[in-house]
Amino acid sequence: MIGGSLAGALKAANWPGEIVGVVRNDAVGERGIELGYIDRYSTDLAAEAARADIIMLAVPMLVMGEQLAIVARSMRPDAIVTDAGSCKGEFVEKARAAFDTLARVVPGHPIAGRERTGIDAADPALFRHRRVILTPVPETAVDAEQTVKALWETAGASVEALCVEYHDRVLAATSHLPHMVAFALVHALADRQEAENILRHAAGGFRDFTRIASSDPVMWRDVALTNRAAILESMDQLDEHMKLLRAAIDQGDAETIEAMFARSRDVRDAYLDAPEG
Amino acid sequence: MIGGSLAGALKAANWPGEIVGVVRNDAVGERGIELGYIDRYSTDLAAEAARADIIMLAVPMLVMGEQLAIVARSMRPDAIVTDAGSCKGEFVEKARAAFDTLARVVPGHPIAGRERTGIDAADPALFRHRRVILTPVPETAVDAEQTVKALWETAGASVEALCVEYHDRVLAATSHLPHMVAFALVHALADRQEAENILRHAAGGFRDFTRIASSDPVMWRDVALTNRAAILESMDQLDEHMKLLRAAIDQGDAETIEAMFARSRDVRDAYLDAPEG
Repeated sequence: MIGGSLAGALKAANWPGEIVGVVRNDAVGERGIELGYIDRYSTDLAAEAARADIIMLAVPMLVMGEQLAIVARSMRPDAIVTDAGSCKGEFVEKARAAFDTLARVVPGHPIAGRERTGIDAADPALFRHRRVILTPVPETAVDAEQTVKALWETAGASVEALCVEYHDRVLAATSHLPHMVAFALVHALADRQEAENILRHAAGGFRDFTRIASSDPVMWRDVALTNRAAILESMDQLDEHMKLLRAAIDQGDAETIEAMFARSRDVRDAYLDAPEG
Repeated sequence: MIGGSLAGALKAANWPGEIVGVVRNDAVGERGIELGYIDRYSTDLAAEAARADIIMLAVPMLVMGEQLAIVARSMRPDAIVTDAGSCKGEFVEKARAAFDTLARVVPGHPIAGRERTGIDAADPALFRHRRVILTPVPETAVDAEQTVKALWETAGASVEALCVEYHDRVLAATSHLPHMVAFALVHALADRQEAENILRHAAGGFRDFTRIASSDPVMWRDVALTNRAAILESMDQLDEHMKLLRAAIDQGDAETIEAMFARSRDVRDAYLDAPEG
């Protein structure tokens, strides 16, 4: 989905250079050509890595280590490797295991997800007006970072740099934690005999709130395992505030309840009231 | 917002009969006329209750008891009283305190909220293809229930009946609990020094997930206090499942994590994948 979207965006923007999709099977590759996202496809990562100027690894974290090893063995020394995974600490760790130096490695993360995966969920407009965070390590070469920045800007995104650890904590708080909660909340309902009856009465707010619980279980399992420390920290912080609120409701403490709700609304409106982007 | 939306919907559907807005001040009433939602307005509930065929109390729970008392003293014996509050147990309790019998009282709850309140947030199309739940008590007269049902159907809603307690538990699970979580989650972030930085990086998923944290703090304080038992029960159920998930992440138990996520996705998609309505 991410790989296809980026390829399609670059094609649409007339990115100079051939865009090759390295895919699992012919069906996906042919669909990519049919949709106009790629110039050609291949199922041979080593062969394509040996020819490429820029190698984008938009793959699940589970296969990232293996693919990084193949790329490290095959790529030209001046080529650039980047990725689109949501946990940068884990990616950097795997990259360090595969490469002697990360001079040509630019860890990246587009803040633009979809619940659906696969080539048919791709959208060349996905990154327009979205943020992409790069988390270069100290030895990452400036020209490599600049090239990856230009790539994402061509796809319509605005790009900024954060350090690896800070990125992972921010993502745990704003993305991973909400996913954990949405999954747990729907799971709690699913356990109740009357789940169907309850969900039949759910309104728009519930749909929005639980939309992310329709996300890919395997991808999110990997996120939960790879950004574990930061996610557990975020879950504990939420738990503390849930306990505060629970106690206030239990005690009928109207003042505390209203103060918590008002603070939340004010903070959310201050930072998120503007249209997305 | 709810009152104005319903009035506007009835006007748009040529509901036979005068539609009178009982408002706090002239400005709101004049705005209601200007928007074409009402025929005229009044600030005198007792006088209007004495003339009305149907009295809709779309007011915060905090003033509900007082307004019910005024209506009970003033209304014609064959008039009908209904409401649009989200906690039916509390409404019925207040109605029992005000009336000798609930024969003419039809508790109701439109499942169609907005974050914003007030006449300018009203929308005559708000109830189209939405559900309205009526929770008649044993002594509620059939003709009164049928009239309120027809009122909401004229506004475009589909109407069904549930018992009071079941309604309140369903609403706690699908609406009140998500609101508590969204408020607590934003509150947990707000406490962190880097709140601004964190929220600046929030993506669409976070916006959707926390949209309900922009809801009216006073209205939701009242919901939290009035549907207390069912909300606490829902919070405890969620807490149990958050603990299960936390333990699985902490122990790196990939199988349990994936099974929970997959179950949540399947349940959500089974009941909520269809377009809203």
